[in-house]
Amino acid sequence: MAKKIKNAISPTRSEDYPMWYQEVVKASDMAEKSPVRGCMVIKPWGYSLWENIVNKLNEMFRETGVKNAYFPLFIPLNFLEKEAQHVEGFATECAVVTHHKLEKNKDGKLVPAGKLTEPLIVRPTSETIIGESMSRWISSYRDLPLLLNQWANVVRWEMRTRIFLRTSEFLWQEGHTAHATEQEAIERTMMMLDIYTEFVEKYLAMPVVRGKKTEAERFPGACDTTCIEAMMQDRKALQAGTSHFLGQNFAKGSDIKFQTKDEKEEFAWTTSWGVSTRMIGGLIMTHGDDNGVIMPPRIAPSHVVLLPIIRKEEEKRKIMDYTQGIADALRKRRYHGRKIVVEIDDRDIGGARGWEWIKKGIPVRAEIGPRDMENDSVFAGRRDKDPNEKQSIKREAFINGIQDMLDDIQDTLFNRAMAFRQEHTHNIDTKEEFYEFFTSQDNKIHGGFAMSHWCGSSECEAEIKKDLSVTIRCIPFESRTEHGKCICCGSASSRRVLFAKAY
Amino acid sequence: MAKKIKNAISPTRSEDYPMWYQEVVKASDMAEKSPVRGCMVIKPWGYSLWENIVNKLNEMFRETGVKNAYFPLFIPLNFLEKEAQHVEGFATECAVVTHHKLEKNKDGKLVPAGKLTEPLIVRPTSETIIGESMSRWISSYRDLPLLLNQWANVVRWEMRTRIFLRTSEFLWQEGHTAHATEQEAIERTMMMLDIYTEFVEKYLAMPVVRGKKTEAERFPGACDTTCIEAMMQDRKALQAGTSHFLGQNFAKGSDIKFQTKDEKEEFAWTTSWGVSTRMIGGLIMTHGDDNGVIMPPRIAPSHVVLLPIIRKEEEKRKIMDYTQGIADALRKRRYHGRKIVVEIDDRDIGGARGWEWIKKGIPVRAEIGPRDMENDSVFAGRRDKDPNEKQSIKREAFINGIQDMLDDIQDTLFNRAMAFRQEHTHNIDTKEEFYEFFTSQDNKIHGGFAMSHWCGSSECEAEIKKDLSVTIRCIPFESRTEHGKCICCGSASSRRVLFAKAY
Repeated sequence: MAKKIKNAISPTRSEDYPMWYQEVVKASDMAEKSPVRGCMVIKPWGYSLWENIVNKLNEMFRETGVKNAYFPLFIPLNFLEKEAQHVEGFATECAVVTHHKLEKNKDGKLVPAGKLTEPLIVRPTSETIIGESMSRWISSYRDLPLLLNQWANVVRWEMRTRIFLRTSEFLWQEGHTAHATEQEAIERTMMMLDIYTEFVEKYLAMPVVRGKKTEAERFPGACDTTCIEAMMQDRKALQAGTSHFLGQNFAKGSDIKFQTKDEKEEFAWTTSWGVSTRMIGGLIMTHGDDNGVIMPPRIAPSHVVLLPIIRKEEEKRKIMDYTQGIADALRKRRYHGRKIVVEIDDRDIGGARGWEWIKKGIPVRAEIGPRDMENDSVFAGRRDKDPNEKQSIKREAFINGIQDMLDDIQDTLFNRAMAFRQEHTHNIDTKEEFYEFFTSQDNKIHGGFAMSHWCGSSECEAEIKKDLSVTIRCIPFESRTEHGKCICCGSASSRRVLFAKAY
Repeated sequence: MAKKIKNAISPTRSEDYPMWYQEVVKASDMAEKSPVRGCMVIKPWGYSLWENIVNKLNEMFRETGVKNAYFPLFIPLNFLEKEAQHVEGFATECAVVTHHKLEKNKDGKLVPAGKLTEPLIVRPTSETIIGESMSRWISSYRDLPLLLNQWANVVRWEMRTRIFLRTSEFLWQEGHTAHATEQEAIERTMMMLDIYTEFVEKYLAMPVVRGKKTEAERFPGACDTTCIEAMMQDRKALQAGTSHFLGQNFAKGSDIKFQTKDEKEEFAWTTSWGVSTRMIGGLIMTHGDDNGVIMPPRIAPSHVVLLPIIRKEEEKRKIMDYTQGIADALRKRRYHGRKIVVEIDDRDIGGARGWEWIKKGIPVRAEIGPRDMENDSVFAGRRDKDPNEKQSIKREAFINGIQDMLDDIQDTLFNRAMAFRQEHTHNIDTKEEFYEFFTSQDNKIHGGFAMSHWCGSSECEAEIKKDLSVTIRCIPFESRTEHGKCICCGSASSRRVLFAKAY
């Protein structure tokens, strides 16, 4: 009979979800706060996850003809003035560089010197600076489409920060494309949302709702913003990726013109799309349990940790050889485009060792002691199951079955998240129920996804936001035409939209 | 008989080397100046080269146990004050963030607002901020060695900039390691220099001289700086990579202490090492000719461009199918860890098409016209040869021989660069000859590498630098003990050092 194991993370999710998140991040050794206000340090275990995300997305982008490039970190102040609407949305909280050197003052302290004639902004996003390049690179329809992507750090000054979810500096990719026709730009906007959907569902094992933002929630200056929204375990929504159809708005601001086949001059149609290190926060909050992070195998930094158990010095050599042999055999196998990554942890620190790997979320742990070796087996545990639930597996079966085991964990995580979302998604048709849904408490957690009717007015949207801090996350693509009454004002509505509290 | 082809780049190298460099970069479509002072835009062809560099180095670093991480872009001013010597070397020219928002003033113009209580510096290098993390992450000998690397953008304000060679913002990697013993840190310093040497010579096809910096040329605060120095075609030296043994200096500044096995407290021994986008400038200046860039095949963004020649519309389908078949067959092959990357350029722009690819430096071009198709062949040109020197090769032989052809180009580039360096490296033993060597002109280019004796005094070193702008690039590891007289003061010297003008 399994003995009761204390949870590795305190508080648990149900005790205090925000605090649980902080503790999980800490226990996973993925990242930490830095001494620089609002900035995080991404530690090797977290950065390796990010590299896997980058590599997979790069592959998917590349297949659609997108090319990576790199644009300056700094944006001249006057560039922001070109895009009035855009600036309203972004430039209010950003890092401003005003000097280009340091000097010692008479007390020997370093002080800023060399004042710039025009301040520079540390990019909060690169629309304007990439637009300037596009305006020079594009002159004819032959130059279109222009399909660019950039992996970069960006800065948006934040007063209240949470690692991965909201930090002043974060890492992201921003795609920027220009097209000859409106249709092509709209198709690209959707194509990139499709890629995000596939990536997030298939690799991060996070089910998402796809849809369009309302005007109030759109990217500043965009004609249309499409997004994918995931449900976290506190039932709040997290936007995991967005793709914007910018019409000719940005082309006009940045003067991106081209000559058509019949020699007319026209403004290009542009798009932009991005995902960030925020996705990692989403992954943690989707799959993590009271014992720590759970890494979906297809994106995990490492797949398997082997834990040799050495009780007597004279057994050490044999057990280590046996362990090494298993590692070598596993490493020859591939799983979703990568070689299987195997850790061998032979530190002599007792039970803390296994728990460290549980908290880090490695998909598979395999203990290897003298008896396992005698039986030509390993004693394996899966991260998606109870830490106590381990089983003896014959060496050959373990090695040959590793990909299936990883796929099974991946599927379990996705299905579990999908079931959770379905359980907490409700069609709500009266204002009373709606307010009740978002205010009644259940272990400090309330609400979920409310699929409710909305008349389309921004007044109703604003009222609900003001009353409940609940926003329309998206108008889901899959939401069918259906007669109903606006949850706020009771006017006629033709489809349900997704309301939720959000990160 | 080959007709005389005009050079694609004007001016040529011998006419005006600095201007040639600018024109080559422009013609290659690798990068360009941005509207932001001192910053460059790295275009897809240049960025793809950088990604190949990153991927290969990551692989080599990883094999030695190094892990990637990410640290904040900003460094608090007081961090720099911890490292007095370090700051003298770096912090004088840097971007200083003093405000965290923008506001509209009464004229409606955006102005900086929200003054920070302490200014932040955009990292010129991350020694101090990584040191702070190390001081928290390391407490016992069990935590050592700690082997970290970061890929990042850094900023050092530059008044006179040249793309890839000297820009205010550039991309680089910075490795930072901490060790329990001096010996281990010294070994790591050399190990990383070995990796840089192997990478630069084997992948970038640039022969390098390995050695130690003199005290005057060392990294500020380091005990020892080792480096690799390459000769450009204007015979100047370019430092292609450095690796620093920092002793306990930085550990003391950042308070990186650990408990030894016998429970004593000691400061760790640290190293740092880096290469940057500057290497791309070196690659261009090592191999480029008067027709543009030449990409070494093992690092080239793409290996082969197929150029279908379609004179009649009715031939188009057949020629395109034939071309596609060749592309598919080539793409199944691997070359030095990557699939062979094939471009098909079917633009109808005449002779400009082939020249564009020559200027971009793609290793192999293959024209495919109706006659080539009839003969089941292609008409191939190699970038290391005269643009006119093309030959008909049977399709099968072309496909099966592609890796050998690429290796042959790679070897040619390395051997050519090595021969050039040897031709322009001289043992010089008198001050008169030395001054003559660095001042006499030959098509605006003079000097080269002078292997000369030096007494070891920084006065002699400074005098030569003042007179000739010539510095000691390194004390080569391979320089043997040999009695001689200092090239400057005539005092006794025991070995030759490498003098040159440098980028």
